[in-house]
Formats: sequence, structure tokens, C-alpha cells
Amino acid sequence: MDLTALATAHPDHWRRAACIRTLTLDAVAAANSGHSGMPMGMADVATVLFDKHLSFDASAPDWPNRDRFILSAGHGSMLLYALLYLTGSPDMTLEQVKNFRQLGAITAGHPEYGHAQGIETTTGPLGQGIANAVGFAMAEEFLRAKWGKRVIDHYTWCIAGDGCLMEGVSQEAIALAGRQELSRLIVMWDDNGITIDGKVSISDRTDQKARFAASGWDVFEVDGHDPVAIDGAITAAKASPRPAMIACKTHIALGHAAQDTAKGHGALTDAKQLQAAKDAYGWPHGPFEIPADLKSWWESVGAKGREARKEWETQFALLSDGKKAEFTRAFALELPKKLSATIKALKKQHSDNAPKVATRQASQMALEVINPILGEHLGGSADLTGSNNTDTADLGVFSPEDRKGRHVHYGIREHGMAAAMNGMALHGGVRPYGGTFMVFTDYARPAMRLASLMGLPVTYVMTHDSIGLGEDGPTHQPVEHLTMMRATPNLLVMRPADAVETAEAWEVALMQKTTPSVLALSRQALPTLRTEHKAKNMVAQGAYVLAEATGKRQAILLATGSEVAIAMEARALLEAEGIGTRVVSMPCWEIFEETDEAYRKRVLPAGPVRVAVEAAIRFGWDRWLFGERGRREKSGFVGMHGFGASAPAGDLYKHFGITAEAVAEKVKSLL
Amino acid sequence: MDLTALATAHPDHWRRAACIRTLTLDAVAAANSGHSGMPMGMADVATVLFDKHLSFDASAPDWPNRDRFILSAGHGSMLLYALLYLTGSPDMTLEQVKNFRQLGAITAGHPEYGHAQGIETTTGPLGQGIANAVGFAMAEEFLRAKWGKRVIDHYTWCIAGDGCLMEGVSQEAIALAGRQELSRLIVMWDDNGITIDGKVSISDRTDQKARFAASGWDVFEVDGHDPVAIDGAITAAKASPRPAMIACKTHIALGHAAQDTAKGHGALTDAKQLQAAKDAYGWPHGPFEIPADLKSWWESVGAKGREARKEWETQFALLSDGKKAEFTRAFALELPKKLSATIKALKKQHSDNAPKVATRQASQMALEVINPILGEHLGGSADLTGSNNTDTADLGVFSPEDRKGRHVHYGIREHGMAAAMNGMALHGGVRPYGGTFMVFTDYARPAMRLASLMGLPVTYVMTHDSIGLGEDGPTHQPVEHLTMMRATPNLLVMRPADAVETAEAWEVALMQKTTPSVLALSRQALPTLRTEHKAKNMVAQGAYVLAEATGKRQAILLATGSEVAIAMEARALLEAEGIGTRVVSMPCWEIFEETDEAYRKRVLPAGPVRVAVEAAIRFGWDRWLFGERGRREKSGFVGMHGFGASAPAGDLYKHFGITAEAVAEKVKSLL
Repeated sequence: MDLTALATAHPDHWRRAACIRTLTLDAVAAANSGHSGMPMGMADVATVLFDKHLSFDASAPDWPNRDRFILSAGHGSMLLYALLYLTGSPDMTLEQVKNFRQLGAITAGHPEYGHAQGIETTTGPLGQGIANAVGFAMAEEFLRAKWGKRVIDHYTWCIAGDGCLMEGVSQEAIALAGRQELSRLIVMWDDNGITIDGKVSISDRTDQKARFAASGWDVFEVDGHDPVAIDGAITAAKASPRPAMIACKTHIALGHAAQDTAKGHGALTDAKQLQAAKDAYGWPHGPFEIPADLKSWWESVGAKGREARKEWETQFALLSDGKKAEFTRAFALELPKKLSATIKALKKQHSDNAPKVATRQASQMALEVINPILGEHLGGSADLTGSNNTDTADLGVFSPEDRKGRHVHYGIREHGMAAAMNGMALHGGVRPYGGTFMVFTDYARPAMRLASLMGLPVTYVMTHDSIGLGEDGPTHQPVEHLTMMRATPNLLVMRPADAVETAEAWEVALMQKTTPSVLALSRQALPTLRTEHKAKNMVAQGAYVLAEATGKRQAILLATGSEVAIAMEARALLEAEGIGTRVVSMPCWEIFEETDEAYRKRVLPAGPVRVAVEAAIRFGWDRWLFGERGRREKSGFVGMHGFGASAPAGDLYKHFGITAEAVAEKVKSLL
Repeated sequence: MDLTALATAHPDHWRRAACIRTLTLDAVAAANSGHSGMPMGMADVATVLFDKHLSFDASAPDWPNRDRFILSAGHGSMLLYALLYLTGSPDMTLEQVKNFRQLGAITAGHPEYGHAQGIETTTGPLGQGIANAVGFAMAEEFLRAKWGKRVIDHYTWCIAGDGCLMEGVSQEAIALAGRQELSRLIVMWDDNGITIDGKVSISDRTDQKARFAASGWDVFEVDGHDPVAIDGAITAAKASPRPAMIACKTHIALGHAAQDTAKGHGALTDAKQLQAAKDAYGWPHGPFEIPADLKSWWESVGAKGREARKEWETQFALLSDGKKAEFTRAFALELPKKLSATIKALKKQHSDNAPKVATRQASQMALEVINPILGEHLGGSADLTGSNNTDTADLGVFSPEDRKGRHVHYGIREHGMAAAMNGMALHGGVRPYGGTFMVFTDYARPAMRLASLMGLPVTYVMTHDSIGLGEDGPTHQPVEHLTMMRATPNLLVMRPADAVETAEAWEVALMQKTTPSVLALSRQALPTLRTEHKAKNMVAQGAYVLAEATGKRQAILLATGSEVAIAMEARALLEAEGIGTRVVSMPCWEIFEETDEAYRKRVLPAGPVRVAVEAAIRFGWDRWLFGERGRREKSGFVGMHGFGASAPAGDLYKHFGITAEAVAEKVKSLL
């Protein structure tokens, strides 16, 4: 690369972009770790984007109508930190940049949502950002239709690298965006031809432009170091009626000795080479030093959107008080006042009518009363709408023809769905939920983990939650998935036992502001066990006494979901033999763990035999059997010990010995 | 569809294909569940494929040089069962077909590997089969280069549906196959335009042919009900120098009232409609009845490859005894005799030299001595070769230019890698291993579960296994992943503590024939703890006493991997205060659980305080702390309680309180 030619052609631009490059070099050198090459390669594209196209106000990074900028290639975090610092975002001080990758700094190795305003999403696991961006763009389309373009009307920008495009989730995202004709989504591909192992071509020779075009995108191509060409390509992409991908041909680690090599991807910390790169840029300034004229120019970039933001506030103020309150409520994740009463009424109705329905159906019954009240609730399913029961009468289908539609046909894309849901939740103004078979949390897992890490209140409607699925067999029967999800920090796993608990579980999920929820729901019909109406949300206790022992309490049965009914039958068998038996329903371990010791002790007192029943593996149950005043010698487990099998559900429960009789026998053997 | 025209144009073919269609209808009706539409739609393609192209001998379904037929759209399992029954595969009796989806039948809802010969892989979770097929084709290329085409020389065929192509893993597979120019791989896409939710177009409008072409495939298109055209397309695909995709335009549930509808995807059990479909086929026969002439024709198809198979045996017999033995050994998953001694020698060397290396480096040191002996060992990494330390000096790079190369650049495709590894292992003759960062088991998870379910002895080299990863931060730091993997049935999770245990762990992994293994390896350097050479493989005990208490045993410290060194330091602190402390290294819980009670009791006797140390969440540890003669009141855990953070590793260990001092304090607080 002839840097002099670049610098000469566009001297002002060159110096501005050099701010990003040199801050990156200095921060990585100070940390002695990080990724230098990507910010150095994409500095020109980012400079043009921020200067001429990105609609934002650095002084108000939470402006709801700002353009969203997603750094999918999250290892290039210094690109984002540099941009936030330079444009004057309040959180991003120079001190923070200097503390890149150090304990307590907001400048984490990869951008962490919540560390600083302006970090729109947590990225690093590749492909997530581009799939988040699809969710952002869907939320924008929905909200623009709902609120009008004076309130919501913005672009979603995404920088993606070769790694993002190799990850399968990118295909799910690209195809979904193409189908949904998300014209406000613009992906800038950092086409530098380099990955960690070497040239991209050693593992991939995909024609990315043809691939995007095959899914209905408009595709542009540009020299990623030519600011005029970049501006032209972005302008064209904005005008496109389809999602747009701009292939930005760049040189990784531009101007450094490691330019265009795999080494350039990582931490460039050699002092001499670093200085040589700065010399090549014509950069005489010290480490972390940004000349005042340049800082001032960048701050003017950060201020460019100020008028637009103020004008937006003026327009917003013109809305009716009701609309303003509704908009603010949705963005603040507050629930409509009448939701609680509505759910109570549904619970009472269930207790009165005692329907025998699958909890997936009970979930739909809950949604039928929730969705008309909760206008920001956006549902969907990964091509199992009728099985996941995620659709309700009032939703309509989200599509280019109906942007107010509230149910999304995500296609057979569990991962893309979960990642898009993250983007929607991050955008704000919507609350997403989405369904698939519980075993396919395996596919959605990387995005579910990020929801937990970011603290996004999304709801996963995971149906067919055990061998109760039946004939589809072990590939479709979760046995370890409850454990996997329970082990994930900051994730509520709720497995309701009947229609009443399902309604309560939905209320608990919707009450969350910083925690995602899983509803683990049965395929098979279950009796209503909560036939006596209680206004109190018992799922919100985590666990509770569903049925008390008559006479002396000799046994406590612990169960979740579809196995609570089995525990109740076992209780009947035991009580008939004079063995006083309590049944504890434990729909949500995480909440119960957080309740106070006194309550836990009331639910799980010392003394009686304890037997847990769950159509899943035992892993984790020792906490409740041996711990919490339990005794190893006086506890047992009835459940799965390995993978399931293909057969009718009833046969499987018998085959694997998960029956009331087996539970009663287990208790008696321990008395 | 004008069925009469189809029947008239190719009357013999029509009746032959109708065997598949009617067996499907009858089996689904008998089971009252299943998926009728796909086998009915693809019956013509499958009939032509089996009759004219698939090289196989039904009487010898384990012939190593057979063509592999992968049903990626696994819900259409009756297609496969019908073909196996009709062609006379020994396992697949009519009785089994009649017991479709019933307990104990080999005809599970989705094809389960191991249930019957001829089921080449377990499918059902969509996209897995096509990604397996890439692994099959890679194994074939490698083995053809290694053994010559008189020994291995076959095609890999795959039927994939719309769902397979929507799943992101398909993109990883397609791109990998295109890059590797796998000309013996032919994918037949069941292009029926229907998914469970309705028309494909509601969620996807991707031009699949353009998408495959963008990744270097040759693409063909055919009327999937015209046998002559199908034959022509397959013939052309075989001649193609690239992987080939044939878009087969079909009608789902052909000839049934539900044809071309989402309903046609599922179980078509209405008796009248079923009869009407049979009438439309001109099929006067009873349920499960195949006229003798048709059964006989199909059996002749099953016998067509018999001569080729016998000729292969003749050719194989001409190999030298050494070569024959080597080939047979590799396919039987036996280890070379000298492997054990080689690993012992490495262990001794480590014990003598006491290197301070990361276990990922120790893993590479083990591979350096294993790979030259184990010629079927095929390594690879998802673009982290230098970090995962999966490459060794002798391997070379697997590519179209070097088919004998044994290290694969899988690209940034953890899921595609794991699924391809499954295909390689299923092919036989190779033993795959592959690496990525442990946190990205999240991406690989669906394929890892299938490896466990199928019992495939693949090895996952999962490095950077904790907060010891350091600055890359919480997105890259596993905390719940050990739990997730330990909870998965039939998966060995080994977390070695030093170079010696790492060598032992590799030996344990290679000893497996029906269980996959995870090696959880540190980024950071660890001291050699096993400085006294023991010939015995201690990892193969699951857990063992690494250091005994001097004097009265008051405490037992339990630890794995990088925390064993911390436990040893804590022991030194405690012993210095006169507190006799045993350290138990627990590299593999699964093995320890399976050892006899007497051994477990020797390792974990009742009495002493127990403290576990692991830089991961506590979930599951209660089994060892409260259970196994432990006492709740006398046990503690030092580890993680949530997600990690971005900082140098040493800072993080201190920040999260995982230190020798904290362990010692915990012990003292419990004494």
C-alpha cells in the first residue's frame, strides 16, 4: 500500500482516520494484548460512516431514534472505543481507553453491552452482531410502522468480518433479512482476506457478494481506503430498497509491518514497528495523544446529530400524553397496569375450569390475554408455530406487507431467531419471545448465552421439553438441557406444572428487566393441579408446597413441570398407605435459590425422606436432595439416566420408570 | 399433478417408487405419527439413485467401500427404512417397518445410527446430515489418497430438505465442501417449497442454486418425478469436478389430498385419504404388501453391487498382510501396539523435566508423539490452529492439493467442524480431532450432542477453558460449559492438571470406541505436578489422590485442571499450619462415577472437610461435596459464581477469589 498516496489524496481524512489507528496501536500496546489489525483496516470506512452518514448525537447516546452501529467483528473493539472517545461520548474517557482490557475498565477485550453507552450489543463470538443487527432492523421497521417515522426512522449499520460471514448464523441472518426486505440494514464487510490461520482462502473461497445477492440483498463493492468511494457506496446502499452489503476491500493492519498478514489480526505491540507505523502515517504525536484540531473535528462529528435529536424531541413532545407515556413505558420495560389483573383473572378461570391441556397450550392461552395488552410483545417461532403455540389471534404476521404484524416466521433458524431477539430487545421498544423445541436450544445456545450475559429480558418458549415428546425420539428429546440452562448464569428456567403455573411463569418472565427467561413446556396434556385460586404468584416463589402431608410428614416429593402430576399421584398412593407426603412444585430453581433461608426451610424442612422426580437427568438435583437440610441416605431421584428413545410418550414414561408407582416405591425404600 | 401421466410415461418406475410411497403411508398410519410427505415426494429420486447409481451390496451393508447415503432430512426416515427393507438389508425386516416409531423397534422416528446397518448417521436435527456428509466425503478423499482407489473410491450422497438448507450449519458445510472441492459429494435437495409453517417463501426466498454456486459447487436442476431426467442429472453431477447440488423439484406428499401443503409434511393418517392416494397410484395391494415381482426387483437392486463388493474383496486380499492389518485396525478403532509405550515414555519425560507449559501446549506435545504412530488421526481447528495447538510437524494440510494432509483448516466454523468430524468418524478408517476455544462448544453443541448419542470416538480439543483466558473477557470465558458437557450423556470431559495428565487424557480419549471426549485445556502455563513417574494412567481412574496429607487428614481438596496447582499451593499453606490436607485431582468425573465404590471411598473417605476448587460455577459439585460420604456442613466451594470479566488472567483469579489463600481460608472456616 502506498500510504503517501492515500495521505496526499485526502489529507484531512487521512489524519482523522489516523486517530483511530494510533489510539488502537497505543491501547493494544499498553494492554499488551488485543486486536490491532481490524480497527486499523476499517478506520477509513468508520470515519466516513460517522462523519457523513451515521445519525447520532454523542451527548445523548440513548436517543431512541439514533442509528444503531453494531460492531459484529467485536475483537476490533478499539475501533468502537476510539470512535466513542473521539466523538465525545460521555462514558468513554481517555482514561478508559488507556485502561483497555484491564480489570474494571469499561473498555473490555470485546465490547460489553452495559459497560458504556454507545456499545449497542456485546460482540466477540463471531456472527452474533450481524444476526443482532437483523433484529435491530426488524424492531425499527415494526416501531416505525407503529409510531410513525417522526418517532422511529433510522438505519442499522453493521461491520462484519470474514469470521462473521463464515459462521453459520450469518446465513440465517442474511436469509431472514433478505426475506424481510430490511432496507434500513446496511452491512459493511471488512474484506481483508485474512483470518487467524492465514489467508481466508485456505478455508473459504465463497463469493460473498453472490451469496448475499442470492438471499435478496443489494451488493456494493468499494476500496475501503478511498473515502470518496466509501461515501458513494454508503449513499447508494442507503437508497437501496433491500438490505445492503458493502464489500469493503481493506488492508488489515494498514501501514504496519504486519499489514496483510495473519499476524496483523492480533496484538501489534513491537515498539519499533509501532513507531514505524506511526511514522508512515505521518503521525508525530505521543501515545494516546490526539491533536486538539482533530479532537475538535471529531467532536463536531459527534455533535452533528444534535439538531436532529432536538427536533425529534420537539416532535415527540407533540404526541398525546397517552402515546408518550406508552412509548416511554415500553422502552423502560414497564408493564401495562392491567396486566397483573388480567393474569390473575386467567389463573382464576383455570383454577375454576381445571383444563387438561399441555403447558404449551396453556402458554398460548396466557399469550391470548397478554398480547392484546402488551403491544410491544413480538412473538415468533422457528417454523414450529403450531407446535410451540406462540401465535395468538391478534398478532398478524410481521412481513414487508405488514410491518405492524407481531408474529415472525423465523424459518428453521433457531440460532438466527435467538440472535435477532437479542437485537430487538437491545433496540428497545419491543419485547421479543420466540419458540422452538427445547432440544433445539442446542442450536440457539450461543445467542441465549449472550442474552444472559447482556441481561436482556427475552422469553424463550421451549416446548416438547422431555421424553413426553414421544415418537420423534432421542434427537428431539431433551434430557440434559434443563441442566445446561440452569447452569447458565442470569437465566431463569421455568418449568410450569399446569395451566395456572404457566400463566404465572409468563408473568414472572415479563416482570424481568435484566434477565432472560426460558419456559420449558410440555407437549403432552397435563391436569390442572392448582384448582384452588391463589392471587399470589407462586412461580415467583421459585418453589412452594403444592400439597401438604396429611398426618405425620414422612416424605417430600420435589418435582417440576409434567412430573408434578406424577408426584401428586405418588402422594395419593403413599397417603393411602398412611405415609404423610408433601409435594413441592419447583418451577424455578434460580428464584428459589435467591429466596431467604427461612422460606426455603419452610418448604424443605429437615427430616422427611426426599425424592425428586424430573424426566431429565439428575445433574444438579443433589443441591436439593443432599443440600438444604437434606440427607444423602434419605433421598432419591426418579428420572432419566441417559438419552431417550422413540416410542409413544406413555410407553417411554413406563420404560424409563418415571411413574407414580416408581416414586412411591422409592420413598418406601428410603423410609 | 397428473399421476396418470407419470405412471403412463414410466410404468415400471412408477410401481417401484410406489413401494416407498405406500410403505410410508402404511407405517405412518400404523404408528399414527411420523412424516409422510418427504418420502412420498422423494421416492422417484431415491428409486433412480438406488437403481442406477448408488454403489452398495444390501447383503454387506458394512462394506468399507460402499457409497454412503445420508438422509439429512431425517424426519423422512420411512424413505430410508423402506429402501433398506425393499433392497433386502438384513436388519430391516417387514416386522420392523410395521413397528415404526414403537418402543424397541429399530425404526425410530428419526434414523438412529446403530439401530440398523445401512443407517449411516443419526439425523433429525436439521442440517446435521449435510454437514456430516461433508465429513464423509473428506474421509473418502483422505482414504483414497492413503490407500489407493482400489481400496477406497466411492461417492457420498445426501438428501437435504429446505430445513437443512435454512440451518446455519449448512452454510458452514457448503462453504467447507466448496473450498475442499469434494467432487464425490452430491447433495440432492428436496425442493418441495413447503415447511411446517407453510410455504418456504414465508420465511426464505434464497436462490439456493446461486447460493451453492457462490461457494464453488456445480448446480443442477431437475423435475424430481421424471426418472429419466433424474438419471441424467445424477450422471452429470457425478462427472462434475466440484461438489454437486441437484435441485429436485418435487411435490411433497405426492398424490395425497395433502400434496403441496404444510399438512403433507406430517403424519397423513386419514384412512379414506390414504386409500385415495393408493388408488391414485394404481396400487390395489393391502397394507405393507409389496407384490413379489416388485420385491424381487428391489432385491436385485440390492444385489447389483455384489460383484463389485466381491471384486473389492479380491483386490483387498492382494494387499500386503501389513497393509491389510493396518486397514482393519483403523476401521476397528484399535490402537497401534506401540502407542501405549510411547505415551508412557512421554509421561516419564514430563515427570523428569517438569515443564511449565499450558495444557494446550502439553496436548500438542502429546500429539507430536501420537500422530506419527496413529496415521488415521486427522486433526484440525476452527481457525485457531496456533492457539489450540492441534497441528504437529508431520501432519501437512488437508486440501485438494494434498489429500494426504492430516490437519484441516476448518475455518471459523465450529459447528460445521464438529458435524464434519462426526461424518469422518462414521465413515470409518479415520479418527478425527478438532479444536476451538472451549466457550465455542456453544456453537458446536448440536453436533457434539449427536456424537454422544451416536457414540462416536471423536476428540474435542477445547482450549482456553476458564477465566485463565484473560483479557478477551466474558464472551470468551467458559464458566458453565464444564457443567453442560458433564451433563451430556456419554461424553467424557477431561480437564488435565499438567503435562502428564494431558498425555494420559489423550490416551484415554484414544482408547474410546463408543464415546466422544472433550479435553478442556488451559491457555495459561501450569507447573508439572506429577513429578514422580507412574506407568499407570491415573486419568483413567477418573480421580485420584495426587498428594496425601502428612499427619492427621483433616481436609480433602478436590480440583481439576488449572486449579489443581492452586489446591497444591493451598495444601502447602494448610500443612504449614499443621492441617493435614489431601489433594484429589479429578480430571474426569464420568470415569470416576463409574469406578467401584471401594475405590471411590479410598479417594473420598468420610470425615475430613472437603473443599472443591474449579474456575467454573459450582453446579454439579454437590455430588462430590455432599454425596460420596461428604457432609454439607463440612464442605465448601471456591470458584466462579457468574460470568467472568476482561483483565489479565492473574488479576481475574485474584478478583474472583480463586487463590490458594482463599482455599486455605475456606478449609479453616470449616474445621
